[in-house]
Amino acid sequence: MPASADPGAKPPRFDIVGIGNAIVDVLAPVDDAFIRRHDMRKGGMTLIDAARAEEIYATMPPAQETSGGSAANTCAVASGLGARAAYLGRVAHDQLGEVFRHDIGAVGVHFPTAPLLGGAPTARCMILVTPDGQRTMNTYLGACVAFGEAQLDHDVIADSAVTYMEGYLFDEPAAQAAFRRAAALAHAAGRQVSITLSDAFCVDRHRAAFRDLVRTHIDILFANEAEICSLYEVNTVAEAVELARHEVPLAAITRSEDGSLILRGAETVSVPAAPTDVVDTTGAGDAYAAGFLAALTAGQSLETCGRLGSLAAAEIISHFGARLQRDLRQEAAAFA
Amino acid sequence: MPASADPGAKPPRFDIVGIGNAIVDVLAPVDDAFIRRHDMRKGGMTLIDAARAEEIYATMPPAQETSGGSAANTCAVASGLGARAAYLGRVAHDQLGEVFRHDIGAVGVHFPTAPLLGGAPTARCMILVTPDGQRTMNTYLGACVAFGEAQLDHDVIADSAVTYMEGYLFDEPAAQAAFRRAAALAHAAGRQVSITLSDAFCVDRHRAAFRDLVRTHIDILFANEAEICSLYEVNTVAEAVELARHEVPLAAITRSEDGSLILRGAETVSVPAAPTDVVDTTGAGDAYAAGFLAALTAGQSLETCGRLGSLAAAEIISHFGARLQRDLRQEAAAFA
Repeated sequence: MPASADPGAKPPRFDIVGIGNAIVDVLAPVDDAFIRRHDMRKGGMTLIDAARAEEIYATMPPAQETSGGSAANTCAVASGLGARAAYLGRVAHDQLGEVFRHDIGAVGVHFPTAPLLGGAPTARCMILVTPDGQRTMNTYLGACVAFGEAQLDHDVIADSAVTYMEGYLFDEPAAQAAFRRAAALAHAAGRQVSITLSDAFCVDRHRAAFRDLVRTHIDILFANEAEICSLYEVNTVAEAVELARHEVPLAAITRSEDGSLILRGAETVSVPAAPTDVVDTTGAGDAYAAGFLAALTAGQSLETCGRLGSLAAAEIISHFGARLQRDLRQEAAAFA
Repeated sequence: MPASADPGAKPPRFDIVGIGNAIVDVLAPVDDAFIRRHDMRKGGMTLIDAARAEEIYATMPPAQETSGGSAANTCAVASGLGARAAYLGRVAHDQLGEVFRHDIGAVGVHFPTAPLLGGAPTARCMILVTPDGQRTMNTYLGACVAFGEAQLDHDVIADSAVTYMEGYLFDEPAAQAAFRRAAALAHAAGRQVSITLSDAFCVDRHRAAFRDLVRTHIDILFANEAEICSLYEVNTVAEAVELARHEVPLAAITRSEDGSLILRGAETVSVPAAPTDVVDTTGAGDAYAAGFLAALTAGQSLETCGRLGSLAAAEIISHFGARLQRDLRQEAAAFA
């Protein structure tokens, strides 16, 4: 179990620094037959190469492009809730990279990572949203694979209360190494380290590395029910919860319309979901983590952390795209 | 007054070929103070250069990118209503150009124009949507300025029942020349020629050329109240209507929530708007023209033309972006 935040450390410049795959989302509504016809795993995230990306895009309906990326979404939403956020991730020097840089900067997130020159293009994720609001993601990582330890901004990490990373980084060895190094830098500065498991299949691909990381480097864990069950290879959330409780100081388990469970030692806090109509679940977990961390770094109670997470998630799933479309600062302030 | 369609011409492959500026929209909600602070003309379209585009983008909120362009929107919506459509316009060989080409192709519009290589980037229009649903547009024309007579596909024009062009083309001399040439090609093949006046300020910049074109080349005219008043330099729509009636065989004057007036010789058909909540008026006129021309080329009555125009416009203004998000084919079929 890693050390918790050093109370003697100087007040940080940022509440959260996110590290993740910098991605532009290409979002379109499809029917279930489209998902089946393309042999996709509904609700999951699949890594694809450039050829497969072209193949899917060629048959995809008209789309809208918006900035995405799991940890980037979390930073953008946290900033929209009033937290001070920074983000590290790699785009290319191209039009989609400019779109990504614009959008994250426009919500006040500090984004110091230099773009990749002359390599792969900016990553994109084709997100197919079925009528039930579920999203099926196909990610071409592009310039993201050029993210490694050299892209870690040591000053920003040392100056952030929480370093927050997405599990998707585990699919690239260089990013996984950067991930461990970032955790070490954060802890050396007396800060906290957080991860979201991202995707049950991603956990499945890298289970041993995830288990080891959570035990040795993580202070705050985010996961949904499928992910936490995959991590511990158990069949019930109740079993997973008891295992998580002993391996990580603080964990938040999201349960879709059933809200979330927050675990700290022997303590369990159950928080309901905020009611809303589901249009597109893309970014729901990212938004929950944003609300949770914004409240946590502001010194709020665990229940408030969970409730702000629910509020942010509800806003995100009420429309297409994974970034806030409505100003939640007033509603958020009412929780404090 | 130009000749009307030649009934002896062979049945065309396309109902509509649109010619226009091929643009990707960059859409974001702003408040009225943003419009004032940037000294923009609310509700209008302003041409900007690359430097001004960067300046506006730098202060603009997070945006979503969707394919746009006035005549391109009309073709996309018409295709979505079941019309057979083609489109001529110039994008660059870049990521936004690929987005444009994908989206127009994905709704079944034939788009044969080759991209511009090594020149300006694909055009973009920063569209700022105020809480009243009005849109204020700032267009960087980019690769569009490389559209000229050489980009006219003679076979497609000769094989389309209606060649439909946007008034925005008048801002570029090469496009204006292409426009006149396209009209001549269409008439030589026994087809009809249509134009939308696009913007009252665009009409104001090129009034003499517009007046001459409408009198000598146009079979079907689209305009809103401000545009038709600007064309004839009169203060009331009633005066403008009487002038238009004598200068063009068929005209449709759109009047926002008051629906539209359709003029053919001495005949006047008044059609109500379809009820909807206004979210973003971007593309309302384009969609009206799409519905109108889809019905007209299917041999429907003028009232049905207007009603299908109203239906399409109502769908478009009920959400962000200028392309259909809902399948209207069943509702459209009920009109036939």
